Amino acid sequence: MQDPIALAIESETGAMTNATGRYEKRLRDLDGVYADEEAFAAALAENPDRLMYEVYEHRPEQVEGDMIVGTSILAPGTIGREYSLTRGHIHAIADRSEIYHCIRGHGVMLMETLAGESRAVEMRPGETVWVPGHWIHRSVNVGDELLVTHFCYPADAGQDYDVIARAGGMRELVVADGDGGWTLEPNPSWRPRDV
Amino acid sequence: MQDPIALAIESETGAMTNATGRYEKRLRDLDGVYADEEAFAAALAENPDRLMYEVYEHRPEQVEGDMIVGTSILAPGTIGREYSLTRGHIHAIADRSEIYHCIRGHGVMLMETLAGESRAVEMRPGETVWVPGHWIHRSVNVGDELLVTHFCYPADAGQDYDVIARAGGMRELVVADGDGGWTLEPNPSWRPRDV
Repeated sequence: MQDPIALAIESETGAMTNATGRYEKRLRDLDGVYADEEAFAAALAENPDRLMYEVYEHRPEQVEGDMIVGTSILAPGTIGREYSLTRGHIHAIADRSEIYHCIRGHGVMLMETLAGESRAVEMRPGETVWVPGHWIHRSVNVGDELLVTHFCYPADAGQDYDVIARAGGMRELVVADGDGGWTLEPNPSWRPRDV
Repeated sequence: MQDPIALAIESETGAMTNATGRYEKRLRDLDGVYADEEAFAAALAENPDRLMYEVYEHRPEQVEGDMIVGTSILAPGTIGREYSLTRGHIHAIADRSEIYHCIRGHGVMLMETLAGESRAVEMRPGETVWVPGHWIHRSVNVGDELLVTHFCYPADAGQDYDVIARAGGMRELVVADGDGGWTLEPNPSWRPRDV
């Protein structure tokens, strides 16, 4: 038996009480993640410690039939023309789904199947994106403030973070459209997976 | 393969777009649920169609490893001194957990194990309650506006709604304290389960 627990989320910062874990990604941790290598190198030279995103999570002791819940806090900005993003992953048990509920900011959930089908779903506060199993997914911050999402996924799902790098990135890039908005652009480095 | 989907939640009403199902409970559907039978009969005579709560849900096609997500919208008020509540359930696969994220209002998640251990966790907007497996759980609205929560649970969990009736109700009642607040009171009809 596990005890019920309250997890309070601070909507401005995304900080979650009673988390069992927290991690953060600095710019230096994201080598190879952004498409524009020159822009990444320039940003890195300026400040390798720039905080890009943080994750608070609550992991239960039990795995089967339970869920991991937490918050993802993604800084705004661009590297070159590409909007600030998370590394992205597919679940190690690939059929496991994930739910993201947007609490603050303006984001895009960028998704892709192993066969190269692509989807981008916009997120505003009060909107939830259901990411079914078998979809690689990454959060992108297309706004000018923090993007805070509240996530939930099966505790046995696991993550495969290399799935994106193996294809030269995701098929589409979420980039600034030059008019204050975002648009999708094909990633020239992307190559089809052998599936 | 299933398609990703956006579920937009209207924070005032709790209505959720792209739901695959919706149900509602009227007062006439809740016979035996409130402790004060006389007060229930009087309220029923006044308006049996009184809307007590609504649920919007999105069910995936896949069951294993996927999750059901939705909103629960619970009207405010009391029946006798007992605050407005949902029937409550334990999962048919009892070790399945559930997450409730409060979007609007002021609530209490009332929980109980089969052995009769009881917990009450208050909920305000921005707070999430993790209900581990093996806990019977019911939402209670202790505020004066709608209680809107966003829930998520494993799609294979199922519900056992009779578990509460079999013990004469939940062990504790969430009642008005006579001073605008709520308090817990032992339920005189509760009897220990044979576990």
